[in-house]
Amino acid sequence: MTTTETRPVDNGVNVEALLGAREALTQAPEAATFQWRASCEWQNGTHSRNTVEGFFGLGEEQHHRTTSSFEVDHPEVFASEDHGPTPVEYVLVGLAGCLTAGVAAVAQHREIQLHKVSATIEGAMDVRGILGMDSDVRNGFSGITVTYDIDADASRADIEALVAQSQKRSAVYDVITNPTEVRVVVR
Amino acid sequence: MTTTETRPVDNGVNVEALLGAREALTQAPEAATFQWRASCEWQNGTHSRNTVEGFFGLGEEQHHRTTSSFEVDHPEVFASEDHGPTPVEYVLVGLAGCLTAGVAAVAQHREIQLHKVSATIEGAMDVRGILGMDSDVRNGFSGITVTYDIDADASRADIEALVAQSQKRSAVYDVITNPTEVRVVVR
Repeated sequence: MTTTETRPVDNGVNVEALLGAREALTQAPEAATFQWRASCEWQNGTHSRNTVEGFFGLGEEQHHRTTSSFEVDHPEVFASEDHGPTPVEYVLVGLAGCLTAGVAAVAQHREIQLHKVSATIEGAMDVRGILGMDSDVRNGFSGITVTYDIDADASRADIEALVAQSQKRSAVYDVITNPTEVRVVVR
Repeated sequence: MTTTETRPVDNGVNVEALLGAREALTQAPEAATFQWRASCEWQNGTHSRNTVEGFFGLGEEQHHRTTSSFEVDHPEVFASEDHGPTPVEYVLVGLAGCLTAGVAAVAQHREIQLHKVSATIEGAMDVRGILGMDSDVRNGFSGITVTYDIDADASRADIEALVAQSQKRSAVYDVITNPTEVRVVVR
């Protein structure tokens, strides 16, 4: 008698812990209230330095393992010094990272082994909006396309279903496709 | 006779160039079509590495002065390895950078000298949404608050007007407060 060894699917996502968290939050829904934060220090011109470190969740202050600092600027074609990506490119990074984390988590849950997941994200924009040239042109993206290239032990239909489920549970996809209230105050 | 020397307002924003760009784009509106991009490579678990380098605008391929690379991950409280900020924190960084660049540009245009501009950005979220626990809870932020601390040679009313005008022309503020179509495809 021979044994067929099946290597367990491992995409590096701890699905058991996530299901456990879900169970725990059912008992204590107030622990599900999170607050994510960034702080911003203007440098000069359109250049700012932004820091991400602490957040609130599970009823207490939390900290990332390290403090992250991000330069945001406008490019030279906008007469700026290009000290870093533009604000809208940071939004695309967030969208890509969110959907991709979701693909990995859903694949783990569905026991699909991933080998490679890459994506290109393209956001179209008519800059006459931000330049205030035409009030019919919006400031933001006219549309965003995310194109995935996925190598996994699964059919094309299953891979498409993975991506669709990731969209359904993505925080950033929701933020971009639906309106969110933003309150801006001066201290 | 004494001369009163007035130091010209300098926030590091080249308003003349921006007004020139506006004039040029009036003549050639097709040059206003931009495409912003990011690319994403899944690493392991919820961790991805994201790159920003090229974009399209003014009718041709453009490049940032340097390539930027960003780690995106989930935190340890979500049973992840916290290799970098969460996707939603990148969105907050984009919002902060966008509004702050706008404050500087509008201040320059209105000849208001800025001395210090800092902001804290807080995004509230009930994580029962992304965990799929309650379909009435959205995945994204329930709301975002941006709090500015601004030291400038201007009245409080003028400072508040600066911030309001920055919101009015902000790309990321528009992306977050209004819906944008996102198409996700598998190659």
